[in-house]
Amino acid sequence: MHFYIPVLTSLEEPQNTKTFKLTYNEIDYTNQRMIMKTKLVNNALNYYLENQSELRNELLDFLRIPSISTSEAHQPDILLAADFLVKKLTQLGFEKVISFPTANHPIVYAEKMVDPQKPTVLIYGHYDVQPTDPLDEWNSPPFEPQIEGEYLYARGSSDMKGQIWASVSALQSILRTTELPVNIKYILEGEEEIGSPSLEPFLKQNKALLSCDIVINPDGGMLAPDKPTLIYALRGMAYFELRVFGPSADLHSGLFGGVVDNPANVLSRLIGGMHDELGRVTLPGFYDRVREISPEESEELSKIEIDEEVYKAITGVPALGGEVGFQPVERIGARPTLDVNGLYAGFIEKGAKTIIPAYAMAKISTRLVPDQDPEDVEKGFRAYLEENAPESVRWELDLLSGAPAYLAEAEAPGVSFFIDALKQTWGVQPFRKREGGSIPVATSMKDILGVDSIITGFGLPDDQIHSPNERMHLPTHAKGVQTLIRFFLSF
Amino acid sequence: MHFYIPVLTSLEEPQNTKTFKLTYNEIDYTNQRMIMKTKLVNNALNYYLENQSELRNELLDFLRIPSISTSEAHQPDILLAADFLVKKLTQLGFEKVISFPTANHPIVYAEKMVDPQKPTVLIYGHYDVQPTDPLDEWNSPPFEPQIEGEYLYARGSSDMKGQIWASVSALQSILRTTELPVNIKYILEGEEEIGSPSLEPFLKQNKALLSCDIVINPDGGMLAPDKPTLIYALRGMAYFELRVFGPSADLHSGLFGGVVDNPANVLSRLIGGMHDELGRVTLPGFYDRVREISPEESEELSKIEIDEEVYKAITGVPALGGEVGFQPVERIGARPTLDVNGLYAGFIEKGAKTIIPAYAMAKISTRLVPDQDPEDVEKGFRAYLEENAPESVRWELDLLSGAPAYLAEAEAPGVSFFIDALKQTWGVQPFRKREGGSIPVATSMKDILGVDSIITGFGLPDDQIHSPNERMHLPTHAKGVQTLIRFFLSF
Repeated sequence: MHFYIPVLTSLEEPQNTKTFKLTYNEIDYTNQRMIMKTKLVNNALNYYLENQSELRNELLDFLRIPSISTSEAHQPDILLAADFLVKKLTQLGFEKVISFPTANHPIVYAEKMVDPQKPTVLIYGHYDVQPTDPLDEWNSPPFEPQIEGEYLYARGSSDMKGQIWASVSALQSILRTTELPVNIKYILEGEEEIGSPSLEPFLKQNKALLSCDIVINPDGGMLAPDKPTLIYALRGMAYFELRVFGPSADLHSGLFGGVVDNPANVLSRLIGGMHDELGRVTLPGFYDRVREISPEESEELSKIEIDEEVYKAITGVPALGGEVGFQPVERIGARPTLDVNGLYAGFIEKGAKTIIPAYAMAKISTRLVPDQDPEDVEKGFRAYLEENAPESVRWELDLLSGAPAYLAEAEAPGVSFFIDALKQTWGVQPFRKREGGSIPVATSMKDILGVDSIITGFGLPDDQIHSPNERMHLPTHAKGVQTLIRFFLSF
Repeated sequence: MHFYIPVLTSLEEPQNTKTFKLTYNEIDYTNQRMIMKTKLVNNALNYYLENQSELRNELLDFLRIPSISTSEAHQPDILLAADFLVKKLTQLGFEKVISFPTANHPIVYAEKMVDPQKPTVLIYGHYDVQPTDPLDEWNSPPFEPQIEGEYLYARGSSDMKGQIWASVSALQSILRTTELPVNIKYILEGEEEIGSPSLEPFLKQNKALLSCDIVINPDGGMLAPDKPTLIYALRGMAYFELRVFGPSADLHSGLFGGVVDNPANVLSRLIGGMHDELGRVTLPGFYDRVREISPEESEELSKIEIDEEVYKAITGVPALGGEVGFQPVERIGARPTLDVNGLYAGFIEKGAKTIIPAYAMAKISTRLVPDQDPEDVEKGFRAYLEENAPESVRWELDLLSGAPAYLAEAEAPGVSFFIDALKQTWGVQPFRKREGGSIPVATSMKDILGVDSIITGFGLPDDQIHSPNERMHLPTHAKGVQTLIRFFLSF
């Protein structure tokens, strides 16, 4: 992580701090500075208000490009979308606007360096979109954007061309009305929906080019239209395949049932024993390095107030489950879990076949929290199997992938500015949330570039991303642009 | 079951018993009877010795007919095989030789009624054979029989054209040298390898035609070349499909892991709890009606002396499993079991997908012993699920099929004769065995015709039935013919 003198000091007495330790309610806004800053923000906001239609029309053009990254047939569209961004960023006055070729789809890079002494924000985005099937469930063609009421319907509107456009709109509003007080870099990939295979190599090969102080990753989304959200933690993962082998071939369950242990029964028993009655994972040492949630954080998280009925409605389950003693947001974000992702043994077609299967297989993922280590989890898993698997079977365990959890430094550069910008725009205290999933991009940025990510975004849970009728809530999008204007002008 | 005056009495003083209560060591062989019987047996055995090659050549012709019942293309061959039997039985002097058409393949019926007052033996067999794939693993073409050393290689040689031919050879040897002292009926189906769909309807529609005192079912086989075997019990079955439903669609295991119970984990836990530490099934009431093995039967069964190393070698497992406190032959034949035949949930392809699956499924079969009832077992299963499934899932349980166990009456007509014939031929005490599987034909004969089956046969465990290079052990086959000659002449 880079340390630098906050830009604020240029408007005040020089300070001796070299880090952003300020939070929005600690900042001593002098009257003079307040007035200047407000003027700049208002000019930019006014610009956005006056040019909102034009910016939105440009977004519609961007959305018309069917940049589906999974599809060979859409390779030309991917290039069109990359080119669209190159043109727009060049037009905004960005420099070094480059479409880097990769093994698959190009990574668009651009920078606007106003002063090497000033901090640098790296904005991450992806211009590729999900496929559109089932196409007949769309109410309007996915690449012919439609505005209906408060919503803009199009593939990629929420995930995440609309998110890219929010930052573009905010930067245009600033650049056309004043000087940018912070360096901006863009990294916009075209492979997010196919697992970002080129991103890590690109980060590794271009560390100097990408050097920055903070990443804005607007691929996260908000809890609700009235709940601006900042994600400060992601769970890690250790994903396993466990295979239990019994007889050398499927056996007749009548002729051998009673003398040959059944690998499918054994596997079930092993999995059944991986949780105790409190819903805790029983793998040896699993909780040894789990950082407990502080009472303060628990209190903070409880503000999110997602009640159980909401989860039941979203998921369709008759009752919730999980570890006893923790609220749902903690169970998802701050507690590790163990889930079977797939199970297979023997005969699974329609009807009946009477066999003792030769083997049984389970895909088992553990979601990890700080400071759990995937390799420690694997060791614990092996110890569990050694202790609990009967001698009548052989087993094999593979760690298919592992990544530790991600926890942003609470005092990472710019975080307080971002929280403040959200609060000023929405008029409510933003929610700080731990996310249950992984965002590999954030982990890569931390591991390779050494910088934290502000994981945010102005998409909503019901935007139907990855599904038919993907949409973007226009008022929330506009608030997102305002937030970004305030954020960039905070420096 | 029919009762009748044993034919033996025609050679002795009339007896007042109407049942076969005799066992071989209780029979009071008078010298005169012994001499007569021995003469008849010797004549028949000599005939077999002299005509063995010719009979074998006929069997080779029978084996050349590729009567694969699963294959539409082999329908003409099925008819050829049925016709082959019709001709042979007619030639032997059988009457009412009929090839009954069914929905699929004909059932060949034939009878030789020497005296309606005498007992009737119904011989069951099937003239259809398994498919031959993988064909390239055969050392010689499956329908071009080859004799190598003591073995005859051909599809159907052991399962079970060779078994049919053993009784045909025995009966020809008797019919050409003396008078048959017992009525014989044949029922030879062509659908055994496809589950005998026409057999039960045929039995129901032809109860009078098929009336008999005992069934010989030589589809059972022997433990070893030096261990003539009689199977007196078969396990029954209750076969279930259990489905556990969680969320209405697969969920992201990161975003929901911790609040949504995973149906695959729940299913595993449920299955894991279906056995206790002693390997006993925990479904409520499961053992309530299990008939315990008497010390005498346990002692008798222990003579089979199949040691654990043999089971390990056959199955390839590193160690045996099963219920604590019972020997392997008891665990297979006389104790009920619960086995998972198939397991499915979520993602089972290569690689990783991070989901909480919407549902999980298991095929679970219980093998039942006397006097367990499949419907009771289903009730116990439901009670187990009601008690143990969490509220966070829904479950469905289907009983796919159910049949009680089969236990032949120890004093069923002819059993003692058969045991005696085996003993005289092999020179050792035959093994009486409980079989772990089901032979639905035996259960149907008992249920519909009310008669017990002598489940036997002269096939060996390493005959590779259902596999490439199926074979028949010629010396064992010859002993089988001798046994059957002795058996038929015992009446």
